[in-house]
Amino acid sequence: MLMYPGFAALDLVGPHQFIAGLMEADVHLVWKNKDAIATGPGKLSILPTATFEECPADLELLFVPGGLEGTIAVMRDDKVLSFLSERGARAKYVTSVCTGSLVLGAAGLLRGYRATSHWAFKDLLPLLDAIPAHGRVVEDRNRITGAGVTSGIDFGLTVSARMSGVEAAEMLQLLNEYDPDPPFDAGTPKKAGPQVTSQLTNLLAPGIANVRAAAIAAGKGLRKS
Amino acid sequence: MLMYPGFAALDLVGPHQFIAGLMEADVHLVWKNKDAIATGPGKLSILPTATFEECPADLELLFVPGGLEGTIAVMRDDKVLSFLSERGARAKYVTSVCTGSLVLGAAGLLRGYRATSHWAFKDLLPLLDAIPAHGRVVEDRNRITGAGVTSGIDFGLTVSARMSGVEAAEMLQLLNEYDPDPPFDAGTPKKAGPQVTSQLTNLLAPGIANVRAAAIAAGKGLRKS
Repeated sequence: MLMYPGFAALDLVGPHQFIAGLMEADVHLVWKNKDAIATGPGKLSILPTATFEECPADLELLFVPGGLEGTIAVMRDDKVLSFLSERGARAKYVTSVCTGSLVLGAAGLLRGYRATSHWAFKDLLPLLDAIPAHGRVVEDRNRITGAGVTSGIDFGLTVSARMSGVEAAEMLQLLNEYDPDPPFDAGTPKKAGPQVTSQLTNLLAPGIANVRAAAIAAGKGLRKS
Repeated sequence: MLMYPGFAALDLVGPHQFIAGLMEADVHLVWKNKDAIATGPGKLSILPTATFEECPADLELLFVPGGLEGTIAVMRDDKVLSFLSERGARAKYVTSVCTGSLVLGAAGLLRGYRATSHWAFKDLLPLLDAIPAHGRVVEDRNRITGAGVTSGIDFGLTVSARMSGVEAAEMLQLLNEYDPDPPFDAGTPKKAGPQVTSQLTNLLAPGIANVRAAAIAAGKGLRKS
């Protein structure tokens, strides 16, 4: 599981609760060094457990979380992108949640694959030669991508079942009492309605523009190489 | 937000994503010292941001996450319990997710209050003079308790609405794309069925027995004082 400055803590911790809960799990939280990494939102910092060099060469699963500001920096970071493309070429599953799919895409790992991302960023996927697809969790061959943030729970269950079978996934679902009952119904733009959606889209607009610029640059790089 | 060795990362990070996402949020991750704290499952460590002494005296919200092994130790730790009872007596909201309610209970903060906990631990609440109640998020006066682990998302939304209004909560729901779509339907014992439930209950039984012993001891302490 890749970490990087500014990743969204819940993007990683949701899936981690399920993947690390599997009997046979040996999870590595990977970054360039082992200094604590500040996540968003707030001031919650998480420690990496392995550097890129220490990370095993052959992974069953490669995972990238999302995170607005941080996504931009790693989409432009050759060291990160070459780590991802090298490990991704050998991993059994190549996966992400939220805008993590744009980082996978910048590493050339989603070219010609159907994928998803956070609803506000999903239309950037074609800039990286990926095909936006409908669904909270999208599977295309060995690529498994989740939509925004909390979809990491549905993603974690899906991946658990792929890795260890449906019964193991159901035990994890029961252990984590995943029987969702949202007190409000505003989880998609359509359900949230135009007022809430336009307010949020306005807040996100500068960030989306910056991510778009990073995606355009990364896409050009892919097509040159 | 209290942290302690062995707390379940998702119990805290779920609510944190919503609470720290509020415009006016000033969240403190509190423990005895600022050394990294190992969470469960896996090897994910999170840094506290404040010691008990540094934590503000008057909190809008006091929160305690769950965590099997770790819960037992803090239910017996006078320093933790007196921190909680002192801050809890002054906080606007006293809250928990999962077995965090047993820690609140051990601090005497749920006597005569309706509350919930992880499904496998909920029947321990009366040992701490709390009244087990139905619901994924249970509100009784200023006590707000969530059920197991992933209920922290529903809890986070509920608390966001109480603190900043329904529209702020809906914006957070949309930002975090919380439109759950579990790939399996095993989130409660009834839905998981007898085979999955009994397998998991057998795995949890030694831990439940240890937590029960801690709850009995804490309850006796409450009734003496």
